[in-house]
Amino acid sequence: MDATTRAAAQRLDAQDALSAFRERFVHDDPKLIYLDGNSLGRLPIDTVGRITTTLREEWGDRLIRAWPEHWYDIPRRVGDVIGTRLLGAAAGQVILADSTTVNFFKLAGAALAAAGSRRVVVTDTNNFPTDRYVLQGLVAAAGLQLRHVEFDEIDGPTPEAIASVVDSDTALVTLSHVDYRSGALADLAAINEVAHRAGARVLWDLSHTVGSVPVELDRSGTDLAVGCTYKYLNGGPGAPAFLYVRADLQSRLRAPIWGWFGQRDQFAMGAEYDPVPGLERFLSGTPNILGAVAAEEGVAVVAEAGIDRIRAKSMRLTDFVVTLADAWLADLDFRLGSPRDATRRGSHVSLRHPRAHEIVQALIEQADVLPDFRAPDRIRLGLAPLTTRFVDVWDALDRLRRLVRARARSRPRARAALAVQ
Amino acid sequence: MDATTRAAAQRLDAQDALSAFRERFVHDDPKLIYLDGNSLGRLPIDTVGRITTTLREEWGDRLIRAWPEHWYDIPRRVGDVIGTRLLGAAAGQVILADSTTVNFFKLAGAALAAAGSRRVVVTDTNNFPTDRYVLQGLVAAAGLQLRHVEFDEIDGPTPEAIASVVDSDTALVTLSHVDYRSGALADLAAINEVAHRAGARVLWDLSHTVGSVPVELDRSGTDLAVGCTYKYLNGGPGAPAFLYVRADLQSRLRAPIWGWFGQRDQFAMGAEYDPVPGLERFLSGTPNILGAVAAEEGVAVVAEAGIDRIRAKSMRLTDFVVTLADAWLADLDFRLGSPRDATRRGSHVSLRHPRAHEIVQALIEQADVLPDFRAPDRIRLGLAPLTTRFVDVWDALDRLRRLVRARARSRPRARAALAVQ
Repeated sequence: MDATTRAAAQRLDAQDALSAFRERFVHDDPKLIYLDGNSLGRLPIDTVGRITTTLREEWGDRLIRAWPEHWYDIPRRVGDVIGTRLLGAAAGQVILADSTTVNFFKLAGAALAAAGSRRVVVTDTNNFPTDRYVLQGLVAAAGLQLRHVEFDEIDGPTPEAIASVVDSDTALVTLSHVDYRSGALADLAAINEVAHRAGARVLWDLSHTVGSVPVELDRSGTDLAVGCTYKYLNGGPGAPAFLYVRADLQSRLRAPIWGWFGQRDQFAMGAEYDPVPGLERFLSGTPNILGAVAAEEGVAVVAEAGIDRIRAKSMRLTDFVVTLADAWLADLDFRLGSPRDATRRGSHVSLRHPRAHEIVQALIEQADVLPDFRAPDRIRLGLAPLTTRFVDVWDALDRLRRLVRARARSRPRARAALAVQ
Repeated sequence: MDATTRAAAQRLDAQDALSAFRERFVHDDPKLIYLDGNSLGRLPIDTVGRITTTLREEWGDRLIRAWPEHWYDIPRRVGDVIGTRLLGAAAGQVILADSTTVNFFKLAGAALAAAGSRRVVVTDTNNFPTDRYVLQGLVAAAGLQLRHVEFDEIDGPTPEAIASVVDSDTALVTLSHVDYRSGALADLAAINEVAHRAGARVLWDLSHTVGSVPVELDRSGTDLAVGCTYKYLNGGPGAPAFLYVRADLQSRLRAPIWGWFGQRDQFAMGAEYDPVPGLERFLSGTPNILGAVAAEEGVAVVAEAGIDRIRAKSMRLTDFVVTLADAWLADLDFRLGSPRDATRRGSHVSLRHPRAHEIVQALIEQADVLPDFRAPDRIRLGLAPLTTRFVDVWDALDRLRRLVRARARSRPRARAALAVQ
């Protein structure tokens, strides 16, 4: 049977064990196909009630008393769900805090401060911008050196590529586990091993990983990681991020921001900074509670669905994109900007096209499809397994091919019209 | 007429031009007297509707499109209201970002990185803990020196005290404008002048100032400031903080966290960090939108009431505390832990008592009064001019004196009972 028919898509939806989770999220516009859930995940319906409760019953009614009653333990509580249910990390190693940028700064800074005479930070030129900028700042301030590893965007960073650049002078290797453009997956365990063999620490950015691809942070010997909660975890715009510090490293590292939420016996307000031995030393200021509560609701839905089922559906969704793109788009100047093998990619697929920017604009304005544009030529389709249906994929790519075909036909006429003027 | 009667308090309320603002906030428990608004301000009623709109109509309905439509400009927009309406700062100098701790780290770090050969940071031993800890971290990392200025807690940091410790080696002076224990006000303009004469920069913490005491940041030649929005601005638990960088300093300073929200042409995602010349370079990661929206609502109510009217009522409220404490509490082992002159203090009053901790517990558990305890012996009463009535002050101090009297009477009996066992 033809795998590219809409009926095939409907059959995949009918077989989808996670289909009921779609109803747990707000869908106001039935025409809209939202393929940007990896930039901002959808709003869980429960989040609305939970935030109202936090406002009315906690802040409004309990006022300052709500801190001990409801709020102080949220960063650790949400962190433990993320760690134990989604990242293969035993409790007490993941905590909600700040933004991804600030957490990345704290953990990279902590690793560099403990690196002794090692002077080199290894990353890749195509890592997510804020990670690269933070590293540039840290390296400039401390007189260190940044070394870039080169690799093919679709292959991702291979252990061999990393092995070729790490040595006894390497303090830190830092990479994204899922490439934000191609979706390529890095081999976390193998790269940890290569870096550790050279005596370097590794800091992973899991922003495109968490809630879509399971990882085993503990089993793979991961040192440090950060990630955001506003993509596949549906935590909301600018929701608090998380950080992971392996248990045995916690008391040996110290973040560069010595904040009062990391202080032992915080409200004694002692003279000298004396951080708790554990994970909370990586907190800085007062955590944002509305953001943390929204993150908790989003994380709860993902944990309930189960990361293995999510991953299985995610691979089927991205496979379906590749199948339809092969069948429909190859003749329209598109090429696949992501790994062909589902086990080698995360939950988004990039389609590359010379006129990607205007195609994305047209999809949004004329076709009710919301993908993402990533410079210079990528149409990035984020498949959120809890909210994206196979028919959504079919309809989106169908609208895309029609739109590109129509523009190809109208182009000569448009040129002719211009020539007349 | 006796100024210490409840009728006198009622008369003050009847004359209060701001009394109607109380109705703009949630008051669930009519018995509760909340005197901890300087730790967490009350919930504005409009915030509930605004957050629901942000959830349903912006995040839920517009999804990623809400960033350009509603969210990108919030940090600057709220910052401008705080700056122009409350802090005497022309537009474009105050922006909402991160927590107070992180902002303090960014601005202190920026000032120290630009301080050339100057090696000393001046602060006071009793400054707010997170500020002291952050400074300790910055100084340790850069091999600088921390010098503490000593002064009487009730007098606050005088220009003379600062003058005695700043010199050509001073990089940065940093103080709280309102002391978090005594409420003592620092002379911002005079201290700026003393520090500038020595060639040092000054960074002010305005957490207990903003929304209760007007300041003139531009006119006083202030360099840098930070503050929180969850106290007198009623922004909610852990709401985003703000930072101020004087216009002419913005392009000359660079925060140590080089984040993508400070990048010129952010979504070009260029290779090198190239910060915008203006205020946004002091942003780091993705701002939390629920927190920012709640802050915007809280700030709006304060701006509408007007900082000068707020200050006038605040002084009358703290005066009333002092009047009643003098009349009722001096014989009960209390002493005033705040300046006697209303023009010399912010919007809270500390009463010191050897058994302050147990008195605060008893007030909360037995008397429906919520003050704050600050080690070792301070009962801190925060008077929030938009929500605290004069009768609240009267009732709270009346309950306090009854409670302390009753305990004084029961104490010998309690001791006797113990002796019998």
